[in-house]
Amino acid sequence: MIKNELLYEGKAKKIYATDVQDVLWVEYKDDATAFNGEKKDKIAGKSRLNNLITSQIFEALKAAGINNHFVEKLSDTEQLVRKVTIVPLEVVVRNVTAGSLAKRLGMEEGIQLDQAIIEFYYKDDALGDPLINKDHIRLLNIATPEQLQVIRNNAIRVNEFLLEYFKNVDVRLVDFKLEFGVTGEGDILLADEISPDTCRLWDIHTNQKFDKDLFRRNLGSLTEGYEEILTRLGGSSCSK
Amino acid sequence: MIKNELLYEGKAKKIYATDVQDVLWVEYKDDATAFNGEKKDKIAGKSRLNNLITSQIFEALKAAGINNHFVEKLSDTEQLVRKVTIVPLEVVVRNVTAGSLAKRLGMEEGIQLDQAIIEFYYKDDALGDPLINKDHIRLLNIATPEQLQVIRNNAIRVNEFLLEYFKNVDVRLVDFKLEFGVTGEGDILLADEISPDTCRLWDIHTNQKFDKDLFRRNLGSLTEGYEEILTRLGGSSCSK
Ligand SMILES: Nc1ncnc2c1ncn2[C@@H]1O[C@H](COP(=O)(O)OP(=O)(O)O)[C@@H](O)[C@H]1O
Ligand SMILES: Nc1ncnc2c1ncn2[C@@H]1O[C@H](COP(=O)(O)OP(=O)(O)O)[C@@H](O)[C@H]1O
Ligand SMILES: [Mg+2]
Ligand SMILES: [Mg+2]
Repeated sequence: MIKNELLYEGKAKKIYATDVQDVLWVEYKDDATAFNGEKKDKIAGKSRLNNLITSQIFEALKAAGINNHFVEKLSDTEQLVRKVTIVPLEVVVRNVTAGSLAKRLGMEEGIQLDQAIIEFYYKDDALGDPLINKDHIRLLNIATPEQLQVIRNNAIRVNEFLLEYFKNVDVRLVDFKLEFGVTGEGDILLADEISPDTCRLWDIHTNQKFDKDLFRRNLGSLTEGYEEILTRLGGSSCSK
Repeated sequence: MIKNELLYEGKAKKIYATDVQDVLWVEYKDDATAFNGEKKDKIAGKSRLNNLITSQIFEALKAAGINNHFVEKLSDTEQLVRKVTIVPLEVVVRNVTAGSLAKRLGMEEGIQLDQAIIEFYYKDDALGDPLINKDHIRLLNIATPEQLQVIRNNAIRVNEFLLEYFKNVDVRLVDFKLEFGVTGEGDILLADEISPDTCRLWDIHTNQKFDKDLFRRNLGSLTEGYEEILTRLGGSSCSK
């Protein structure tokens, strides 16, 4: 596979075309951003950790029958994915109160929820990724009601799988963000990444944080936390 | 009917008990507030206008078969209503983009919507009345899914009625906020007020504003705008 031109540079990844039409080359970056880009830093080793963790998770999801964009890990910081047209929604699934949910509803962090909560945010940096509802999604033509239902069902399936997957390594899956895309055939497909950048992951016994809140809230070394997740998941670097 | 003790003083109304168990005495106030109380003023005559307009509208809704809390107009600034336990939701219905919707979605104001949009805000001043979704409503135990469906259906019926009602007097119903309560028998009942304080009302030809945006945005005399609505609706003061 040949890496062609840069198609898009986001906050966490660079996306390149390849010589295969619907395959993209993803290069993870060492940049850390929070609060819609207000807080920024370069953190050596972050790209490797996120690429390895997300590769591991997407492979595990595939093995469990949850289809997704992941094709192949190329190196410690690169992977191939299937190209989709991203649905501009950040689909957030929550099992425990934290972050903006706790703030929005005036609740403490750390309260276990009886049933998972799903939220849709409009993926638009200029607007600050606002929370939206299904009427807004219809108005903006972001997804059809049927696509939205598929997205919701998929998000719930991913949550059920990941809850167990992390519990097996003594990690509490507090919440996470998913992105979905539409394939050339018009199917909804899980895309983007699932990493400590996009999840809240706490030690099941001590509630120690292993995720981006380490950076957001200056709670300690981000790479140590992410490395702990990689180790617990049994992940490893490429021998390349 | 006897007016008994003050039960609650809100931003726009005082609520008194009466000698009848499930009837409340509502006294409209001359206070205007906006932006969650940050902007405040006293505007002589506002209490009369809102009490007369809301009485007129609730009576018209009743006549159209849309049940609500309204019992009787007592004076220019007072009315009797049936006591309910207010569901802490601000149910917003929108026909045209304006205000926070335009801001949230990055749209211009004044765009006609194909289909009405319904939004639920958690009625909590301390939290700034945040937008919430049905999962949040379930988590907060604000309403059962069945009650929420009844509320949504009622909101749509009210919208259909009011669109026509205002169109007949050359007024464009841009958006409005409803509150519902639960009666002693457990039924959902439309409550609170429907007035230029809680609606956006524009002249159908010129888009001149006759609502609280006059105050929020310092666009002109609030009482002149509200008086125009009262006049167009054929409303009148009490002869008392
Ligand atoms: N399979 C895919 N096909 C096309 N785009 C993708 C795919 N997976 C992820 N993306 C997009 O790649 C872009 C770069 O990722 P990232 O750096 O995280 O961007 P952002 O700053 O928008 O979060 C994002 O817009 C993301 O939605
Ligand atoms: N029928 C009713 N029974 C009980 N409470 C009501 C009824 N109708 C309205 N209310 C409540 O009366 C209170 C006073 O109204 P208002 O001054 O508008 O208060 P707020 O500042 O909370 O908006 C509000 O909490 C409103 O929800
Ligand atoms: Mg991203
Ligand atoms: Mg009020």
